[in-house]
Amino acid sequence: MLTYELGKKRGRPLYEQLYAAIKNDICLGKLQAWEKLPSKRDLARHLSVSVVTVENAYGQLVAEGYISAKAKRGYYVLPGDRIAPPQPPPASLPKPCQAKSDFLDLRSNSLSENDFPFSVWSKLMRKTMADYGKQVLQSTPAQGIEALRQSIAAHLYQFRGMEVHYDDIVVGAGAEYLYNLLIQLLGRHHCFGVENPGYPKIGQIYRANDVAYANLPMDEAGLSLQHLRRSPADVIHISPSHHYPTGIVMPGRRRQELLAWASEQPGRYIIEDDYDSEFRFCDKPIAAMISNDRQERVIYVNTFSKTISPAMRISYMILPPHLSRSFKQKLSFYSCTVPSLEQYTLAKFIQEGYFEQHINRMKNKYQSKRDAIIAAIRESDLHTQADILEQNAGLHFLLRIHTDKSDRELVRRAEEAGLLIACLSQYVHGNAEKYAHHIVVNYSSLDFDQIKPAVDKLAAVIRA
Amino acid sequence: MLTYELGKKRGRPLYEQLYAAIKNDICLGKLQAWEKLPSKRDLARHLSVSVVTVENAYGQLVAEGYISAKAKRGYYVLPGDRIAPPQPPPASLPKPCQAKSDFLDLRSNSLSENDFPFSVWSKLMRKTMADYGKQVLQSTPAQGIEALRQSIAAHLYQFRGMEVHYDDIVVGAGAEYLYNLLIQLLGRHHCFGVENPGYPKIGQIYRANDVAYANLPMDEAGLSLQHLRRSPADVIHISPSHHYPTGIVMPGRRRQELLAWASEQPGRYIIEDDYDSEFRFCDKPIAAMISNDRQERVIYVNTFSKTISPAMRISYMILPPHLSRSFKQKLSFYSCTVPSLEQYTLAKFIQEGYFEQHINRMKNKYQSKRDAIIAAIRESDLHTQADILEQNAGLHFLLRIHTDKSDRELVRRAEEAGLLIACLSQYVHGNAEKYAHHIVVNYSSLDFDQIKPAVDKLAAVIRA
Repeated sequence: MLTYELGKKRGRPLYEQLYAAIKNDICLGKLQAWEKLPSKRDLARHLSVSVVTVENAYGQLVAEGYISAKAKRGYYVLPGDRIAPPQPPPASLPKPCQAKSDFLDLRSNSLSENDFPFSVWSKLMRKTMADYGKQVLQSTPAQGIEALRQSIAAHLYQFRGMEVHYDDIVVGAGAEYLYNLLIQLLGRHHCFGVENPGYPKIGQIYRANDVAYANLPMDEAGLSLQHLRRSPADVIHISPSHHYPTGIVMPGRRRQELLAWASEQPGRYIIEDDYDSEFRFCDKPIAAMISNDRQERVIYVNTFSKTISPAMRISYMILPPHLSRSFKQKLSFYSCTVPSLEQYTLAKFIQEGYFEQHINRMKNKYQSKRDAIIAAIRESDLHTQADILEQNAGLHFLLRIHTDKSDRELVRRAEEAGLLIACLSQYVHGNAEKYAHHIVVNYSSLDFDQIKPAVDKLAAVIRA
Repeated sequence: MLTYELGKKRGRPLYEQLYAAIKNDICLGKLQAWEKLPSKRDLARHLSVSVVTVENAYGQLVAEGYISAKAKRGYYVLPGDRIAPPQPPPASLPKPCQAKSDFLDLRSNSLSENDFPFSVWSKLMRKTMADYGKQVLQSTPAQGIEALRQSIAAHLYQFRGMEVHYDDIVVGAGAEYLYNLLIQLLGRHHCFGVENPGYPKIGQIYRANDVAYANLPMDEAGLSLQHLRRSPADVIHISPSHHYPTGIVMPGRRRQELLAWASEQPGRYIIEDDYDSEFRFCDKPIAAMISNDRQERVIYVNTFSKTISPAMRISYMILPPHLSRSFKQKLSFYSCTVPSLEQYTLAKFIQEGYFEQHINRMKNKYQSKRDAIIAAIRESDLHTQADILEQNAGLHFLLRIHTDKSDRELVRRAEEAGLLIACLSQYVHGNAEKYAHHIVVNYSSLDFDQIKPAVDKLAAVIRA
C-alpha cells in the first residue's frame, strides 16, 4: 500500500500533500502505467486520513490526467511521457524590467509605453473570444479572415480614398513575411531593385532568399529612374510616401515616371511599401501609387507595426487582380500566419472606429513631439551647426550637421554621452561619402521630458 | 458661423449631436485644415445651447484628433487624411455561426470547441499585459523571447526527456513558416526528400520555394532507406513519431539507419516533424530522433497547433549547434513572426503547469474518443468489412475496407450520406493502387455523440 508522511505541520492541506506525493511517484515511475491504486476507503484507513481527503487528492489527479476512474473498478495510473528530471532546469520568466537602460535613444521608432490602447484592445479580445468561440480556434484561410480584410478595405477607402477589393488583400505576420511570399508569388527569376540608401532588411531578405537584387541610387525625388534604366532590376521595392531614412516624399512626376517604366514591359512590378503613410502632418494626403495604377503593376504593402504596435506582427498587401488570382492558385495552401484571435480583434478594432481614433491621437502626439524637438533644436546651440531636413511626414527626419568629425566618431561620442544615434551613412551600400554628417532623428519613442536633454547632449557632442 | 439644427427630439445628447455635425463637416472638407472654430461662448450663443454643451463637443473632437486647442488662441481644425466616402462599403463582421454544416467530418483534426483553455488563457493574457507592459510592445528577437524558449526547453526536458538549450530554439508563426526559414538556412542547393504518401503541404512548400524535392516511398517501417539511397535527396523531411496519414510509428532500427545515413556525408540532414507526439496512448514514450543524434544532423520541429489550437500559429524548431550559429549569422535580422503578447502568455501557460495539465486532459479525452470510435466500429456492421490499423498513437488511424468500390466512389457516397471522409490514396503522389481502400479516420474533432452516427453512416456507405 502507498505510504506517505502527511501532516498539518507541512503547511499545505492534507489532500494536496497526498496529491503531490502520488503525482511524484507516478512521475518517478514508482507507480507504473495501468497500476491500480488502493480504494479510497483502504488508503484513508492506511494513512489515517479521512475518505474525503483521499477523494479530493484522487479527484485532482483525475482532472490533471495522471489517473483515471473506471466505474466500480477503481482508480488506475494513466500512461504518459512523464520522465522526472533529476534537476529540472530553471525556467523562471525574467522580472519585467522598467527601462532597457538610461540611454536616450534617437534610433528606435518604437512606441512609448502608454500609447498602445491596452484596455480597449483587451476588452475587444475578450469580446471576440466570447462572441466567436470555436471560430477563433480554426486556422484561417491563407489570405486572412474575411472580416479583417473587409475592415482594412473600408478603412483604406475612408482614410486614404483607396478603392480596394478585400479579396485582393493578403494578411501576414509582418511585412518581412509578406516579402518572402512575394518572392514565391512573382517567381525567382526577377531582379529586385532596392533603394540605396534604404532600410537594410529589404536587401537582407532578398539575399537570404538567394534571389538577384540591385542597390539603386536615390536622387532628390527618390529612386533614380536613370539608374533604374541601366540596371537589371525588373521589380522595384520603394517607399514613395516617406522614404527611410532620407525622409524623401516622392513627387507626383517621379511616381508617374516609375508607373510608366513598369508598364513598358510585362513582368515589371512596383512594390509600394507604405509603412508610415498614416503620419503625414501637413498638406493634402498624397494618393498611394496603387491608386494610379491602371496596368496592374503595383503591389501595395502596409503594416500595423507603426500604427498600433511592432509586437503585433500584422501586415497586409494588396495584389493587383491577376496576381491575386495567381496567389489563390499557387500559394493558398499556406495557413495564414496571424493568430485568428488577433485577426478578429483587429477587425473589431478597425470597424468600431478605435483604429481611426488611435491614429488621430498618435498623429497629434507625434506632431507635438516633432514640434517640440524641432523647437528644442532651434533654441539650442545646434541651430548654428545643423540644418533640419524634413518634409512634414513620418516618424523621423534628418539633421545635417556642420562638422569635421566622422560619422563613426559622432556615433561613438554620442554613445559616451548616453545618447544613441544613427547616421544616414550607415544605411548606404557602397560609397557613403556624400551622405556623411546626416543624423537620422527618430523621435517617436522619446518621452516629452527627454527631448531637451537629448538635444542638449547632441549639441554638446557636436560642439566638443 | 457654424449652423446646425440640434434638438432633444433627435434622441442623442445635444453635445453629441454637435460633435457629430462638426466632425462631419471636417470629414467633408467643409471645415478646412487650420480653420479656426468659433469660441465656445460665441457658438453656444449662436446655437442657443449652453457653453458646457459646446465645451463637451469640442473636448470630444480634441480627444479624437479632429481639432486642437491652443492656449488663449482658441480651437482650430487639424489636418488629416479624411476623405469622406460617398457610400462607404459595408464592413460588418459576419454573424458568429454555430456550426459549419450538418456534415459529420472525419477529415478534420481540429479541436472541439470546449477544449481550448479559454478562461486560463485570457487570464494569463491579461496578467501578461499588466506585468510586462512596454515589453509586450517591443518586437522580439528573431528566435522568439527568451522566456518562451526557456519554458519550451524545460517542458521538453520534463515531458520528453530531451536536453535542449533554449538558445538553439527558434519560434515562428507555424511549422510552414519554419520550413521556409529552413530552406533559407540550409541553402537552396539541397534536394529535400518527402514521405510518399505524406502530408501534401510539405511538398507544396518546397515547390513554392522552387527547390528540388523528391517523393520517397514508405515501407512498413516508414521512409524506405533503399529508395532514399537511390534518390538525390540529401535532406529528409519525416515524421517518425506518428506518420500522417499512415499512422506508422518508426521503429528504433530504422531511426538508427537513417541517422547513420545522415552521418555518412556532410550536408545531410533529417527534419524530424514531431507534430503529434504528445498523443501517445500506450507503452513507453519513444525518444525523439534528435535525442540520439550525436552528429548534429537532426532538426526537430514541433507545434502548439495540435496541443493548444491551430489558430495559435506558434511552432518551434530546435537546431543543432552549428546550424544555430549559422541562423544567428544569416537570419537573425528577421523579426519573430509570433506576437510578443502570445509569446509571453504561452511562456506563462507552460511555466505555471497549465500546458502539462491541458495535454493530460486532452490525452484522456482523445483516448476516450478513440476507444469509443474503435468500440463503435467493432460493434457495428463494419467489423466484418474493415480492419482497424493503429499503433496507439496520434489523432488518427486507418480503416482498411474490404470493398470493390473505388476510393473516389466511397468519398462521394459518404458525402451524399452527410459524412466527410478522406482516403489514404488521396495522400499518395503517383500510383496509389496499393494504398486503395484505406480511410483516414481523424476523430479529434468529433463530439462523443457524433461517434455512433458517423460509424453507422460509414457502415451504410460500405454496405450499399
